[in-house]
Amino acid sequence: MTDSAQCFDSEVYAQRLEKARSLVQDNGLSGMIIGTGPELAYLTGSWVSTHERLTALVVPAEGEAIIVVPDVDRGDLQLSAIPDLPITVRGWFDGVNAHEIAASAITGEGPVALGSSLTTAHVLALQELLAPRPTVLATRLLAGLFACKDDAEIEQLQGAADAIDRVHAAVPGLLQPGRTEAEVAADIERLILEEHSAVDFIIVGSDEHGANPHHSFSERVLTEGSPVVVDIGGTYGVGYHSDCTRTYIVGGEAAIEKAPEEFRSYYAILEKAQEAAFQAVRPGVKASEIDGIARGMIADAGYGEAFFHRTGHGIGLSTHEEPNISADNDLVLQPGMCFSIEPGIYVTGKHGARIEDIVMVTEDGAHRFNTQPRSLR
Amino acid sequence: MTDSAQCFDSEVYAQRLEKARSLVQDNGLSGMIIGTGPELAYLTGSWVSTHERLTALVVPAEGEAIIVVPDVDRGDLQLSAIPDLPITVRGWFDGVNAHEIAASAITGEGPVALGSSLTTAHVLALQELLAPRPTVLATRLLAGLFACKDDAEIEQLQGAADAIDRVHAAVPGLLQPGRTEAEVAADIERLILEEHSAVDFIIVGSDEHGANPHHSFSERVLTEGSPVVVDIGGTYGVGYHSDCTRTYIVGGEAAIEKAPEEFRSYYAILEKAQEAAFQAVRPGVKASEIDGIARGMIADAGYGEAFFHRTGHGIGLSTHEEPNISADNDLVLQPGMCFSIEPGIYVTGKHGARIEDIVMVTEDGAHRFNTQPRSLR
Repeated sequence: MTDSAQCFDSEVYAQRLEKARSLVQDNGLSGMIIGTGPELAYLTGSWVSTHERLTALVVPAEGEAIIVVPDVDRGDLQLSAIPDLPITVRGWFDGVNAHEIAASAITGEGPVALGSSLTTAHVLALQELLAPRPTVLATRLLAGLFACKDDAEIEQLQGAADAIDRVHAAVPGLLQPGRTEAEVAADIERLILEEHSAVDFIIVGSDEHGANPHHSFSERVLTEGSPVVVDIGGTYGVGYHSDCTRTYIVGGEAAIEKAPEEFRSYYAILEKAQEAAFQAVRPGVKASEIDGIARGMIADAGYGEAFFHRTGHGIGLSTHEEPNISADNDLVLQPGMCFSIEPGIYVTGKHGARIEDIVMVTEDGAHRFNTQPRSLR
Repeated sequence: MTDSAQCFDSEVYAQRLEKARSLVQDNGLSGMIIGTGPELAYLTGSWVSTHERLTALVVPAEGEAIIVVPDVDRGDLQLSAIPDLPITVRGWFDGVNAHEIAASAITGEGPVALGSSLTTAHVLALQELLAPRPTVLATRLLAGLFACKDDAEIEQLQGAADAIDRVHAAVPGLLQPGRTEAEVAADIERLILEEHSAVDFIIVGSDEHGANPHHSFSERVLTEGSPVVVDIGGTYGVGYHSDCTRTYIVGGEAAIEKAPEEFRSYYAILEKAQEAAFQAVRPGVKASEIDGIARGMIADAGYGEAFFHRTGHGIGLSTHEEPNISADNDLVLQPGMCFSIEPGIYVTGKHGARIEDIVMVTEDGAHRFNTQPRSLR
């Protein structure tokens, strides 16, 4: 094991690799090929980045696992658990057919699962070399591996949630009339960095900016009684992410009565919908059912078209990953799955609101990682 | 046209779209599907980023071009030329099959070209919907569109090169004995930001760190006579990139004689190889031939294995793009192609050297965008 703090102990990755190989075998695959990014970090602790050059971890159903990596980036693998894992490093230099090295490590005749981060050039080149074997997406097939967090990961996600909760605790004090969204965002950036290794994103959306779920922040000046959506996240620990949204009123509790009446009315509905969706989370329920509960309550109140995104997304080594909590995902929830519940209501040109917590499926229900108050204040 | 400075006038993009459609037709394709990133920015001026959600520009051989974009990110298209282009915006919300919207815009029966930035989930979903049409990589097929820069782009690349040249002009003064690589990098970061909108990367590799082409910088302290590889780049203008490497001796000209003798000896070879490769650039020559010239001279001097990366890469709206100047790329150079020429020699555990300029193929030869001195100083 290296002495880097970038990853867990190598035994963690050795177990994950074993499990990955079992899933490959159990699903009748001849192997899986994983590119750089969160999936590789999950399996090896490596965050090596090689831009357009191919880096691929190949786990065949039978035979040795290899990692194909450009010679120029090979040194970065020392920062991961790879030196201590049963993975053979196969360096390649420009001009060599790296895809051939990866494909030839797979000897079986079944389909091959491809990791989600590979880009077009790599997918097409691998498909040609792997033919007639079909290729399938590794992510959902291996959801039991990627989507269900183990104890070490849950500890990281709780730590990340606690960190962003401490930032949110300071936000009401920052939202003073006369300040701009950008000034508030600058303060939040500093606070996130006190608690995390990196800032992932900062949304400070006041009044009509709150109606754009992907607004960042602007020079718009805050006024008393304005609703402000604050959605923030950072990178924590060995690479896990926080992501939490609260909607505030500029000026605090004393100013709530100055907020638009329509806003206050639909905020109450949103709060109930978010709570109901959380209460419904337990093993055996489909992701689409959770989405349906929040969406149904909001639609019943006449705001169905004002809630135009999914109810949530998985989170872990990436901010957005499986399981999606959306109408088209019939994935059955299992203990250890972690995701956001973040319904929103957006009234274009006026204001918007969103409430987001990261939650985990437990043996008999669900756990909320984020605990800051959700009611208007 | 919007008033944003993020892109050129909309006529530029209208012409590019027309040319893209001609190339689709001339190559017997039924259409092309382009994801987010430099290729989309090239065709529309849009840098919209939608993470794992599909955004795709579809240019069919016949019929209207469409852009499929998540509703939550639709507003970002206003920052591009898209509102003024003959492109129909097709928003989608979570739960809708966005791939189906994209695929159904293509009605012909020929192959479909896919842009390079699409990731596995999108490639596989589109392939299933487009079948039995085969999918091919858009990038090389459309190299005439993406790789040959027009006048507006050449002006941007020259501006980017001038900007990074001014930074390099200041580097010798920063490389003082007793300073760390990280201190020098912090100064360079500030200088890059005075000339660019963003820092892309900073490599300050002294002594043995210079033998790792992808080193960044560290707390290592510089000593007089040490060779230092400085490879830096930033984002400029509407999104074009600079990328230039020089190798320096700490302490300047007076200290050259303190540099390791082996280093001085192979540096002279490297300088000649870089010059010879540049002199060979002209229309009709293959990319692999340019690589072969630099590689041959370095190998003849006994350093073949110490030059373990390609001689160069294309550059434009991305730092690495076609044409690769590598042994396996028989692409024939055409006027307007812009790429780096950056041979290197790396002696593991001791020191290394690299010289990099961005060059352009002209009607009768080549133009060098970067002009800072290349000889040791």
